[in-house]
Amino acid sequence: MLPNSPYPLLEGIQFPEDIRCLPVEKLPQLCNELRNFIITVSANNPGHLGASLGAIELTVAIHYVFDTPNDKLVWDVGHQAYAHKIITGRKERFDTNRKYKGISGFPKMSESEYDAFGTGHASTSISAILGMATAARLAGNSSQHHIAVIGDGAMGGGMAFEAMNQAGGARENMLVILNDNRIAIDENVGAMSQYLLRITSSKSYNRFKKNLWNLFNFSKFIVQAFSRLGNAIKGQIVSQSNLFQQLGFRYFGPADGHDVVKLVRILSNLKEINGPKLLHIVTVKGKGLQLAEENQIAYHAPGNYDPETGEMTVSDEHNKSPKYQTVFGETILELALQDEKVVGITPAMAIGCSLTIMREKLPHRVFDVGIAEAHAVTFAAGLAAAGYIPFCNIYSSFLQRSYDQIVHDVALQQLPVIFCIDRAGLVGEDGPTHHGVLDLAFLRSIPNMIIASPINETELRNLMFTAYSERNCPFAIRYPRGTGVMTDWKTPLEKLEIGKSKLLKQGKEIAVLSLGPLGNNVSKAIAILENEGIMPTHINVCFLKPFDKMMLDEICNTHHTIITVEDGTVVGGLFSEVSEYIIEKQYAAKVVPIAIKDTFIEHGDIANLHKAVGFDVEGIVNWIRETYRLSYSKFVNE
Amino acid sequence: MLPNSPYPLLEGIQFPEDIRCLPVEKLPQLCNELRNFIITVSANNPGHLGASLGAIELTVAIHYVFDTPNDKLVWDVGHQAYAHKIITGRKERFDTNRKYKGISGFPKMSESEYDAFGTGHASTSISAILGMATAARLAGNSSQHHIAVIGDGAMGGGMAFEAMNQAGGARENMLVILNDNRIAIDENVGAMSQYLLRITSSKSYNRFKKNLWNLFNFSKFIVQAFSRLGNAIKGQIVSQSNLFQQLGFRYFGPADGHDVVKLVRILSNLKEINGPKLLHIVTVKGKGLQLAEENQIAYHAPGNYDPETGEMTVSDEHNKSPKYQTVFGETILELALQDEKVVGITPAMAIGCSLTIMREKLPHRVFDVGIAEAHAVTFAAGLAAAGYIPFCNIYSSFLQRSYDQIVHDVALQQLPVIFCIDRAGLVGEDGPTHHGVLDLAFLRSIPNMIIASPINETELRNLMFTAYSERNCPFAIRYPRGTGVMTDWKTPLEKLEIGKSKLLKQGKEIAVLSLGPLGNNVSKAIAILENEGIMPTHINVCFLKPFDKMMLDEICNTHHTIITVEDGTVVGGLFSEVSEYIIEKQYAAKVVPIAIKDTFIEHGDIANLHKAVGFDVEGIVNWIRETYRLSYSKFVNE
Repeated sequence: MLPNSPYPLLEGIQFPEDIRCLPVEKLPQLCNELRNFIITVSANNPGHLGASLGAIELTVAIHYVFDTPNDKLVWDVGHQAYAHKIITGRKERFDTNRKYKGISGFPKMSESEYDAFGTGHASTSISAILGMATAARLAGNSSQHHIAVIGDGAMGGGMAFEAMNQAGGARENMLVILNDNRIAIDENVGAMSQYLLRITSSKSYNRFKKNLWNLFNFSKFIVQAFSRLGNAIKGQIVSQSNLFQQLGFRYFGPADGHDVVKLVRILSNLKEINGPKLLHIVTVKGKGLQLAEENQIAYHAPGNYDPETGEMTVSDEHNKSPKYQTVFGETILELALQDEKVVGITPAMAIGCSLTIMREKLPHRVFDVGIAEAHAVTFAAGLAAAGYIPFCNIYSSFLQRSYDQIVHDVALQQLPVIFCIDRAGLVGEDGPTHHGVLDLAFLRSIPNMIIASPINETELRNLMFTAYSERNCPFAIRYPRGTGVMTDWKTPLEKLEIGKSKLLKQGKEIAVLSLGPLGNNVSKAIAILENEGIMPTHINVCFLKPFDKMMLDEICNTHHTIITVEDGTVVGGLFSEVSEYIIEKQYAAKVVPIAIKDTFIEHGDIANLHKAVGFDVEGIVNWIRETYRLSYSKFVNE
Repeated sequence: MLPNSPYPLLEGIQFPEDIRCLPVEKLPQLCNELRNFIITVSANNPGHLGASLGAIELTVAIHYVFDTPNDKLVWDVGHQAYAHKIITGRKERFDTNRKYKGISGFPKMSESEYDAFGTGHASTSISAILGMATAARLAGNSSQHHIAVIGDGAMGGGMAFEAMNQAGGARENMLVILNDNRIAIDENVGAMSQYLLRITSSKSYNRFKKNLWNLFNFSKFIVQAFSRLGNAIKGQIVSQSNLFQQLGFRYFGPADGHDVVKLVRILSNLKEINGPKLLHIVTVKGKGLQLAEENQIAYHAPGNYDPETGEMTVSDEHNKSPKYQTVFGETILELALQDEKVVGITPAMAIGCSLTIMREKLPHRVFDVGIAEAHAVTFAAGLAAAGYIPFCNIYSSFLQRSYDQIVHDVALQQLPVIFCIDRAGLVGEDGPTHHGVLDLAFLRSIPNMIIASPINETELRNLMFTAYSERNCPFAIRYPRGTGVMTDWKTPLEKLEIGKSKLLKQGKEIAVLSLGPLGNNVSKAIAILENEGIMPTHINVCFLKPFDKMMLDEICNTHHTIITVEDGTVVGGLFSEVSEYIIEKQYAAKVVPIAIKDTFIEHGDIANLHKAVGFDVEGIVNWIRETYRLSYSKFVNE
């Protein structure tokens, strides 16, 4: 240990076994050091700070009590797992968290044996741990323990309920720890959230808080009684009528999630109790960083900040183009102010998608339905069936949760739900669980869908207005995270012709057909290539479906090669659409795709990812140049 | 009215307004007539008998009390809605139920204004009715009522929970009627089901059964008290600790769902109470047909039967080929007997998919997780992560519910879950909600997936064995409902080469590439065409992904035209795969698809549907002949 090290205990910790050598009374200090370490490192390497600060004591207690990685631990969503990463062999690499080629911001099976199951999307942990617990029982391995940690937001997701329903019915041995911090990315909503608040604010809770510790001090004696009596006394502790008990779980809590010594005691006792158990702990998101505690939503993922004061670093955003999110938020408000039938729906992403702009002015017409993407879509369908005009904003990778509802409840009934698909394409540091690269493919095969992607902010506005104006079919508009390219974007709303592409530059021989904002990189690439005498035509496709076949007829009759450009998988999107039509019409044109190969793309900053997959200007220049060279040499040889 | 008519009351009923003219004491007779009518008509026109017989009194009571279609009524799943169809203008067409060009077996918005929302898949009704109730509130329409009827099986689906969670939190005016018949298609499972059983079998229930009616006789007085006291007395009736109350619903019940007069009284009172309400009624599936009551699973959809006795008509199945379902069931059992790591998972479809064959012998290794497709897949992923070998059997159209879980929990982590996708392709009478025609497209764009479809029973067996043997990746095997083509299918298990197609017939000029059992129709078509001198090559593709590119290279070098044949949408499946590769390699071959156009296909028997989309032998003959003629004339003209 170095003299004056800020982390005297943490320095000796590489793996949980090192923690297990410590006496329990040292754990509070270890937690403090972990907290300071996370705050210090994350100050210059942004990540999901708030959730991880709230879960430090829990993390230490779990690894202290349970025999990980033999015992299995699954972190729901996973962005509360920084302390877990640090004490499971990744301390030295923690400063690469979420960076390109660095460690993932989420648990990842291929990264560590301590990550029993990869996460990223919400509400999966109970299903996964139930699978593992079932496997252990079948294998006769009764000594293995199975723990899922899930937040109060994720507990409202339907999948978590489905898993609780099976687990409670099947009575598998497992421990669900409900980490109740009253907040997801945004304020929590829904009856479950209100219910948890009632539990923790009731008199019986406050009475219980004292008694719980006494009770747990009986330790072995009580535990054995529990085991003997089995179901008979299930649920006697707080109440006989707890919601989780009704689902077949033994309920324990609520307990203070920041008292690591008591958490160790509770978990040690729960280890001895069979069957499905739920431990409800109460934690503070952002715990230990005053500003983060006071501004939990802002500090969910705060970017850079001062590690001493917590003050966020103000980035220089002068003269920057607006975020697509802002354009969405301002435009839906504009439409909503003109038409009282316009409503906004989000599954727990009001801030991220900027539906907050409308919520501030028209709160009664904005519906945050909680982490419930499947329900969100059918709820929107119900509103549409009643004559309302729902804009349903869901991140692309989360929309995967709504696939059946889009097919069965919206498209089949031709209900005019407007899907605003945020975070489409590569998203950057959140990585493969969050990249929105499948939406073009999975939406294109659904009959009746209109699918569009704007090249810039104004086109996003106009697509929203077009969707609002038409309303014969479901209408999907996908756009990326982050800033666009314009400054003067707030032009009068204009209705676009559905299925009509736009010629951006007339050239010859090669035509580049781009969908979405990557078209801006294509424009820059073409400007560079002009100096070399390469003059491709550039079309902004805008609509993937219906596709502008007249344009393609024209292109195929006048160009020998087509390059398709899309921020999505090459399997099933724009490249497929163009290929199918060219095959159908037996055109001679060659088609080459710039798209994401049929593989999962890792995490990292967008610049590096775009470079890696060839979406940057240089990559597009090279691709066009090479295509031109190949076609030219072919021409010469012929 | 005709003398001696068996339906003296029903004859006068076309629409609910006709029922509302009847005195309440006539309703039991109307229910009896409706029941006899359904039993008589369905005896020769099979449908979902059991659920509809159980919901007759409820149907009559709802339409008697509420002002449908102004008040909105959504039937979850919808196969309990026969009485609803009959009394909402479709009595004369009821004998066309589920037939080609007849009325749909499910509620359908385009069929009747009384069908406020189309259904088919489970657990959507609460989301949809919540959307409509929200719309009514926004529109200031406080007189409109909103009712969802949902079974106890569907109530266990995560989406229903998500909707309850929002509704209970938002306190919208709506009535959820939980139609508890203790059974879905199969026995219900899970903690929710056990909970409902505890409610209805407890002493307090039996005491309550008497008191409820007394209470409701107070009627207006009580109702006004309710309205005044608001939340304060919410939930005083049965218990303060009911699960639904904890989710913010006022709970009423359980009530006898076959006492139409009392149901009318209860519903009339509930009309006056604001906020989210849940009425729990207990019904008997198959009510009124003794054999159906005694054999609820068999009579869920019994086929033809004697309308007097209920005896099912024994169809002549001699010398018939086995169902694909039987092949799946026998083969998984065979593998499971050899390897104790093999487990079977189904979301509430054990009978339909024949996982019952394994369950009879190895019940502890078969998991019916309830109506919970999303959870089923991640539960399987958890088992796979723990070294087990899960065969997860889900119907194709229900697998749409698991899309994100396949991507996020299985494929991204490359977990070797084996998906056995039943009911793939057109399914027949269940219609567009149940056709499994999107799976090839939505699975193909997911990295790491293996996707296969067998041409016959033996190939299904061998694919299952291959998936079992490989286990590097998720492996999807899709096959249709119904019988195959073989008699001697139970051959020794053989491991297939992944991604390898099979040459079935060497021909020339035209090559037919078929995926799945439609290949058998192709073989018959080719046999017919040989007499005309048309001799196409026939390849059984077997694997959509990885695709046999070497085969396609060979074909493209030796044939001028390719016909792809697949029981799925033309957008994104086999035709797309072949088109993309031919574009990539710049082959000259023409490709024409036999597939489902980019549109939803209606219901009807498979023979008619196949004829309509060109999948029958004659259709394929015509298609190949026309393709040959066109290419020949092109050749002559050149």
